[in-house]
Amino acid sequence: MTDKLTPAERTEMIDPLLQSGWQLLDGRDAIHKSFVFKNFVEAFGFMTRAALWAEKWNHHPEWSNVYKTVEVTLTTHDADGLSALDAKLGAKMDTLAGD
Amino acid sequence: MTDKLTPAERTEMIDPLLQSGWQLLDGRDAIHKSFVFKNFVEAFGFMTRAALWAEKWNHHPEWSNVYKTVEVTLTTHDADGLSALDAKLGAKMDTLAGD
Repeated sequence: MTDKLTPAERTEMIDPLLQSGWQLLDGRDAIHKSFVFKNFVEAFGFMTRAALWAEKWNHHPEWSNVYKTVEVTLTTHDADGLSALDAKLGAKMDTLAGD
Repeated sequence: MTDKLTPAERTEMIDPLLQSGWQLLDGRDAIHKSFVFKNFVEAFGFMTRAALWAEKWNHHPEWSNVYKTVEVTLTTHDADGLSALDAKLGAKMDTLAGD
């Protein structure tokens, strides 16, 4: 069981992501970001790197890809909302994307 | 420019896909299939293999992944509908998925 973030933890962990292009979703305790790359190879390369971290941490994104764009939604089903794992994976994805 | 399939070509190339789980979308000349695997590793492994063919053929899917499920939509923007490339990539994906 992964714990949902407390208000103080949200400020600490989620607020920085909201400064780097992540947005809170309406109607769901989740964050979303659109990553746009130069082409499909760059976009899918990003997905592949992120997939390895997702599997390593046993925390997987909801994501879609159309050519050079990757749309990512992060939430924690076990916690019924955002957990520290979402913050960690979001930050890692920013690093992998060079954001 | 890739040509949109003629009615005869659709019967030849698309009908077999409709027998293997692909469906025509409403309101869009496109085909869609949900692939369900054992886990994320299997699902993303399938995406990786399919991505290499997509790039090789310069024909890319619209697709999304949530854990062990991969949803794929194929259409050809250049042709404003289904082309031979969609039939080819759809059949390749079936093979890669073991369907």
